Amino acid sequence: MANPCVDLSGIFPPIPTPFDSSGNIDQGALKQHLEFLGGFNLRGVVVMGSNGEAVHLSIEERIQLLEVSRDLVPESKLLIAGTGCPSTKQTIEISKRSADIGANAVLVLPPHYYKGRMTTEVLTRHFHAVADGCSVPVILYNMPACTGIELNADTIATIAEHPNIIGLKDSGGDVVKLGALHQRLGDGFQLLAGSASFLLPALAMGAVGGVLALANIAPGQCLAIRQLALAGDWNKAREIQLRMIEVNAAVTQRWGVAGLKAAMSLLGLDGGYVRAPLLDLEASAIDLLKTILIDSQIL
Amino acid sequence: MANPCVDLSGIFPPIPTPFDSSGNIDQGALKQHLEFLGGFNLRGVVVMGSNGEAVHLSIEERIQLLEVSRDLVPESKLLIAGTGCPSTKQTIEISKRSADIGANAVLVLPPHYYKGRMTTEVLTRHFHAVADGCSVPVILYNMPACTGIELNADTIATIAEHPNIIGLKDSGGDVVKLGALHQRLGDGFQLLAGSASFLLPALAMGAVGGVLALANIAPGQCLAIRQLALAGDWNKAREIQLRMIEVNAAVTQRWGVAGLKAAMSLLGLDGGYVRAPLLDLEASAIDLLKTILIDSQIL
Amino acid sequence: MANPCVDLSGIFPPIPTPFDSSGNIDQGALKQHLEFLGGFNLRGVVVMGSNGEAVHLSIEERIQLLEVSRDLVPESKLLIAGTGCPSTKQTIEISKRSADIGANAVLVLPPHYYKGRMTTEVLTRHFHAVADGCSVPVILYNMPACTGIELNADTIATIAEHPNIIGLKDSGGDVVKLGALHQRLGDGFQLLAGSASFLLPALAMGAVGGVLALANIAPGQCLAIRQLALAGDWNKAREIQLRMIEVNAAVTQRWGVAGLKAAMSLLGLDGGYVRAPLLDLEASAIDLLKTILIDSQIL
Amino acid sequence: MANPCVDLSGIFPPIPTPFDSSGNIDQGALKQHLEFLGGFNLRGVVVMGSNGEAVHLSIEERIQLLEVSRDLVPESKLLIAGTGCPSTKQTIEISKRSADIGANAVLVLPPHYYKGRMTTEVLTRHFHAVADGCSVPVILYNMPACTGIELNADTIATIAEHPNIIGLKDSGGDVVKLGALHQRLGDGFQLLAGSASFLLPALAMGAVGGVLALANIAPGQCLAIRQLALAGDWNKAREIQLRMIEVNAAVTQRWGVAGLKAAMSLLGLDGGYVRAPLLDLEASAIDLLKTILIDSQIL
Repeated sequence: MANPCVDLSGIFPPIPTPFDSSGNIDQGALKQHLEFLGGFNLRGVVVMGSNGEAVHLSIEERIQLLEVSRDLVPESKLLIAGTGCPSTKQTIEISKRSADIGANAVLVLPPHYYKGRMTTEVLTRHFHAVADGCSVPVILYNMPACTGIELNADTIATIAEHPNIIGLKDSGGDVVKLGALHQRLGDGFQLLAGSASFLLPALAMGAVGGVLALANIAPGQCLAIRQLALAGDWNKAREIQLRMIEVNAAVTQRWGVAGLKAAMSLLGLDGGYVRAPLLDLEASAIDLLKTILIDSQIL
Repeated sequence: MANPCVDLSGIFPPIPTPFDSSGNIDQGALKQHLEFLGGFNLRGVVVMGSNGEAVHLSIEERIQLLEVSRDLVPESKLLIAGTGCPSTKQTIEISKRSADIGANAVLVLPPHYYKGRMTTEVLTRHFHAVADGCSVPVILYNMPACTGIELNADTIATIAEHPNIIGLKDSGGDVVKLGALHQRLGDGFQLLAGSASFLLPALAMGAVGGVLALANIAPGQCLAIRQLALAGDWNKAREIQLRMIEVNAAVTQRWGVAGLKAAMSLLGLDGGYVRAPLLDLEASAIDLLKTILIDSQIL
Repeated sequence: MANPCVDLSGIFPPIPTPFDSSGNIDQGALKQHLEFLGGFNLRGVVVMGSNGEAVHLSIEERIQLLEVSRDLVPESKLLIAGTGCPSTKQTIEISKRSADIGANAVLVLPPHYYKGRMTTEVLTRHFHAVADGCSVPVILYNMPACTGIELNADTIATIAEHPNIIGLKDSGGDVVKLGALHQRLGDGFQLLAGSASFLLPALAMGAVGGVLALANIAPGQCLAIRQLALAGDWNKAREIQLRMIEVNAAVTQRWGVAGLKAAMSLLGLDGGYVRAPLLDLEASAIDLLKTILIDSQIL
Repeated sequence: MANPCVDLSGIFPPIPTPFDSSGNIDQGALKQHLEFLGGFNLRGVVVMGSNGEAVHLSIEERIQLLEVSRDLVPESKLLIAGTGCPSTKQTIEISKRSADIGANAVLVLPPHYYKGRMTTEVLTRHFHAVADGCSVPVILYNMPACTGIELNADTIATIAEHPNIIGLKDSGGDVVKLGALHQRLGDGFQLLAGSASFLLPALAMGAVGGVLALANIAPGQCLAIRQLALAGDWNKAREIQLRMIEVNAAVTQRWGVAGLKAAMSLLGLDGGYVRAPLLDLEASAIDLLKTILIDSQIL
């Protein structure tokens, strides 16, 4: 494996950043959530991903969030920092600072404003510069629903030639692409499902785990899907997987981060508020979400 | 199950329609191919699907093709006829004639010319009229790469309320949708992967088999993926599945029907010619295809 | 000009095919509509286009429709027949028969079922074979909302090299593409707007006219936009153009052919029924359509 | 008009931000370019738009750029600042600072990371909060090629209800939408073409001018198209418009900001470098660009 000291096999929740009613980062809520997650056999956590509202944070807030998280996440778990920025220079800077604070790896979105210019060559130069400029491993992050860019297998394989780029979180849901990448790149390039809706099919194609918004509220179920598949009990794994599809949609494409935060609050955690322009869920949506949580046996 | 006498569990090749150098249906080549397929434990065959160039056939040719196939396919195997037409009336007529000739089920594409009008209501009326007007069961056929329409889970579930609509061939590749449908509709609505590239992930989500272009040239491998998964040996199944991705792409999105026919000819079968506007493969593409067939251990 | 005897400068309504309550072609209604249109200074009519529900017609019905129309359209007006079919052979056959019956030109949609295969080479071979095999000029028909294929400027320019291909009806609405084509191909390749919503901007870019669904119900207004622009009175032309946008949307993307037929009936013409799977407008939609017709000063 | 003191009628170049070989803002090059533009009868300039690589600039650099520009742009010309940020709070802050420095209006992109959440309600709240929090008028900026979001007519009309939102720069190219908006909102909502490729058709639909990358290198031609159209000479205007299409594509979708900067350098201005991940043009592309500039009679 390219970087044997960072084994990504397992489940990672990308934690939301809790804001209080004044719009500031709520460290108490953050601590409570990390303690809750600490009770499960997760491989680690991701901070400042899409669910962390990274785009709504100032540089100072990002640093603060990372420092607090590093204090609260035990050394035995991986702390992965989302560090993708529009420019190569900014991405390297924040990646370096993240490594200095103690992140074990960085998760890097492609630049995506100038979509028409994001050729394989441009993206490869960008990611290689980041991988060169950063002391911890880099994980690619394909998130077409937010970036408008789908990294295809050829582009990913070219970028993956750099020894410090160790894997991919793919939220696009194209499991055939995951299979093609695994066939082409082998175990040395670690594939992570980017959404719980296709965790089991991704494992069927060779993924080693997932970075899953749902793992913030249903860590046990996400872990069980993976453990059952590893143990060969795919029928049992399927049963849980299918039960997770609707609730996963609720906290991702249907209501997004606000839905995830509302679900946390319904479960007795403190999800907190989202930042504008995002809107917190209205009461009727919360009621519907509650029904979905009950139907999925999470609540 | 809605229609217990037609169990779709298994693998179906959608056979290409062989044309001779004059552009006529080549019955000898058709017979040879059906005999080749007869040596495998397939559940049946599909005629007049996308790989059968149904859109290039006259009504008379469709009838002829179906009659010849019925004579050559043993009663123990299912014969499924593609019968989707632009109008409801035409679709009912060809479905009825197919049933009269002995098709065990019909596979029905949605009308798709007036894409903007194809609401759930319009599609439901259409498919229910076809299901009412036809004595054999109806299988929905989602094929967005050709129709430009992606049937979503809600639309499919609404259409599936009719007792004579027994399943779905889905070529779109969204395995999360397959999982959501299986969770919602249960075993009574039978799901078939529409391409070999995602057969194993589809089985992981509850599909019962597949209608697979690749099964025309690699029936043994397609059957093995399903058998190994049923037997619980997902690691072995994955090994074959991953090896099939590139070759499957070659005979579907990369080169289409012409690629499938060329692959048949490379394997000693007689694939024959395509009809214009489709173009047969050039020599350089055939060489490349040969390498892909060898790499995938089919040749 | 490539084919100086067929000058497309002007406005053409693509007429809907009227069906009676039994679903048969209603020749009386057809005659009434052509007589109504005969009162305007139109350049001609198109039969068997998208608004003519060509895909819902049998070959026999197409021939019948064309023969009746030829009898009813005076020699001084152009009769253009839509003849695009999935295969090259079928397209040539129906084009030939159309010319024999007296069509002055044929309007040819690209084949579009095997979208992934429709390269510039494939399309060029197809259109050139049709142009070779047909004694009357060929007009390209770009209709991405129905075909799922957008013919780009390079592809169109390559196809346009054939001397018997004299123009383009473009329903995609990309007026920059029209401008680029006019700059590149000059007056010898005649450009027609494919929807009344962008008639004036298309004229600004060098189009010579339009094939406009709206011209079935508002021929005077469509003619006026073109006449005023030719006369240099763009402010007056704009006033009418802007007033036509909402009503044009109503009889195209919003309600399609059924909307157009309902509008005809509201205007005292006999639009007749659509064929399934299309649905005729419900009463509430007809009320809304009436309001739109009044607001646009057509009714 | 909603805000009669800010009349947007005219042509605005969105200026690129020149970087020197060390990657810093090159104030000398900026000054040279603004002086060049000062020789034309432009309505003003836009800084920190897409061509200004706003996403690559730090907050400090944005402020610096704006201050320098304010010093160099005479009071008689409008200075418009691009201020769209991912969060509402950040957007208000930078808009306020821009107004304090002397921007006459702000041009605001929609937030676009959480595309699935950007409903009309969310966008309306966002833009109204910005319009409330900023002392200068707000111009909407629709830029689907970069944001992945197409603001439709209904959404724009809802947002436009705020009296401090005075217009729209639309780079999507849907001139029918511009016409529908003009019909609906009248002269009080000022429409600007967002690309020179459709300046004339946009004017045909009621636009008052344009924010045009091409106006950085061909200000005279862009002004002439508008002047000729206003004077009623649409044939002459068309001639120039058609000649601008290919060169405009070269400095926008084909090569983007790097193409625009290279074109400036070919014209004797100092375009400077782009920031990574963007790549400066290679020599072969510069040669091709030169030919295009000559063909369009700019060079």
